[in-house]
Amino acid sequence: MVDRIKSKNEPVTLLDVAREAGVSPSTVSRILNGTAKVSDDKRKAVETAIAEMKFEPNQLAQGLKSGRSMTIGIVVQDISSPFFDETLHGVDDGLKGTGYASVIVSGHWNADEEASRIKLLLARKVDGIILLSGRIADKKVLEFALDKPIVATGRSLNSKTAVGFKLDNVHGAYLAARHLIELGHRRIAFVTGPANNTDAAERQEGYQNALREANIPFEKNLVAEGNFHEASGLLAINRLLETQQQFSAVFAANDLSAYGVRLGLYRKGIRVPEDISLIGFDDLPSSLYTTPPLTTIHQPLYDMGLLATKTLLGLIAGNEVDTTLPGLELIARETTRRMR
Amino acid sequence: MVDRIKSKNEPVTLLDVAREAGVSPSTVSRILNGTAKVSDDKRKAVETAIAEMKFEPNQLAQGLKSGRSMTIGIVVQDISSPFFDETLHGVDDGLKGTGYASVIVSGHWNADEEASRIKLLLARKVDGIILLSGRIADKKVLEFALDKPIVATGRSLNSKTAVGFKLDNVHGAYLAARHLIELGHRRIAFVTGPANNTDAAERQEGYQNALREANIPFEKNLVAEGNFHEASGLLAINRLLETQQQFSAVFAANDLSAYGVRLGLYRKGIRVPEDISLIGFDDLPSSLYTTPPLTTIHQPLYDMGLLATKTLLGLIAGNEVDTTLPGLELIARETTRRMR
Repeated sequence: MVDRIKSKNEPVTLLDVAREAGVSPSTVSRILNGTAKVSDDKRKAVETAIAEMKFEPNQLAQGLKSGRSMTIGIVVQDISSPFFDETLHGVDDGLKGTGYASVIVSGHWNADEEASRIKLLLARKVDGIILLSGRIADKKVLEFALDKPIVATGRSLNSKTAVGFKLDNVHGAYLAARHLIELGHRRIAFVTGPANNTDAAERQEGYQNALREANIPFEKNLVAEGNFHEASGLLAINRLLETQQQFSAVFAANDLSAYGVRLGLYRKGIRVPEDISLIGFDDLPSSLYTTPPLTTIHQPLYDMGLLATKTLLGLIAGNEVDTTLPGLELIARETTRRMR
Repeated sequence: MVDRIKSKNEPVTLLDVAREAGVSPSTVSRILNGTAKVSDDKRKAVETAIAEMKFEPNQLAQGLKSGRSMTIGIVVQDISSPFFDETLHGVDDGLKGTGYASVIVSGHWNADEEASRIKLLLARKVDGIILLSGRIADKKVLEFALDKPIVATGRSLNSKTAVGFKLDNVHGAYLAARHLIELGHRRIAFVTGPANNTDAAERQEGYQNALREANIPFEKNLVAEGNFHEASGLLAINRLLETQQQFSAVFAANDLSAYGVRLGLYRKGIRVPEDISLIGFDDLPSSLYTTPPLTTIHQPLYDMGLLATKTLLGLIAGNEVDTTLPGLELIARETTRRMR
């Protein structure tokens, strides 16, 4: 009798067939791929269950046959950050129709916790891992990748079982600052990220490169430290305004801190972009809906998630993978304008 | 010799001890809790490894001893939605210091997929499951909960192994509409959620309750359908403005659609709150940083995640659990004002 929990539209799985036939899932798997001897009784029970339940060995079953768990593990750092959301959205779409499920764990920007979560995933028999950013050393990632393939973002890796995708922060930040310079701005404040954060340092480097190219002296007083969160952008712009420094534009090292800058300017009655131009970095989906919509640097986070997934599935299947990622680009919306 | 992959600061786990001593983790576990006979050689190897590696049986080890996997599964619907982010943040904090890790899977608002993901988690031996929203029938959730305890949000469940947390949408929406009415608004437009969505229907009910209480006739023309995303709020406010209906306030059924309404009003040069008051529903973290900051109904999403986690861990441990959730409340910020 067919399991009554099953609804009409729910796909029948190998596990359902096993339960119906009263055998283990691995027996069903062995019958499907013909790799081992099974008693005639069991074979008949399984074949009857397959026919009655209209079971179609799909990609999931194919994978199980080949000894795969059809599950990949994803290590994020902060599950509640919109930054990871976009990448996860790409991963999610990359898995559609592949028969693979994903399980997500959080490393909390802590190298030891990342290592322990990767071990947890490997112990749970994932077929591969996507590591989004993180602080764990490359060397350890490469060691874990000897067990199961790993695709990582935010770092450069290139081994047979580990591939890294790293975006060019320096170039992206250069594009942002150059955009402001091309609009006639010369005194451009920079709200940076946390001290010791590589992304933040690289973005400051790009900002300084653009200034140098335009023969604009770099002024330390125009740099205010933030921590990539909204509140820090608000505090940073307040500090910049208090110092009485003159500036006509602000480059915030990420979109979230740009939102804080935007609110800080609003509080002081300073209009964007009429009085001050503002540019962010990331192009989060919500930046389309700030008032006015935020000019920013588009990071292909969604594409990176999609490509990371395709690359990982390629590594698992032993196929060649194309790892060309789109570059960063300026998205000019309505918070920047030509200086009057 | 101690495994060289291990960094100095990384906590030593039971698995590390097992590897070092050349025995299975369950042997280490049995030695730790003294439940079974182990050869003297093995016992000595394990004791030596414990001493050399300075292993401290922590909560994780305690859990493993008791046959638990020390992992809980979380089923979300849309991993890239800020709505789930807040709840997951609470879950994350609820697990801190407990020795438990979480694995997250996505059900994509599809009852069959949710069921298949719950099965995946159970097959991976989680100790319990948190189900965030979703379309799977209560009956099936209760059946799965016979295997491992389940705590669910967005539904009412109350069995020995399943607990549900449901927020009072009707009351929250009533608070939103009453706030506008108390400010003197009588023509209040409502941007609703998707047709057939329970949350949306309940919020519309609360809106209508507040109108009825104030003897304000309900007008269908003042209701515009959205889908809980920003773009739909923008389109809804455009349709409302095109119909030449008079209204002095807008209640958007969630914060994301309120952001779209805000941008639509900005595009037409209509000021918020000077010309039109606007209120949302959810209190997403980003609503603190819209310009101006959004008046909204606070849903205790973070608290719900925290409480769901504590409740689940209580069910797993067989402890009594206090399941009192804070209520919804009005957060009056700067997008609403007294009608002139």
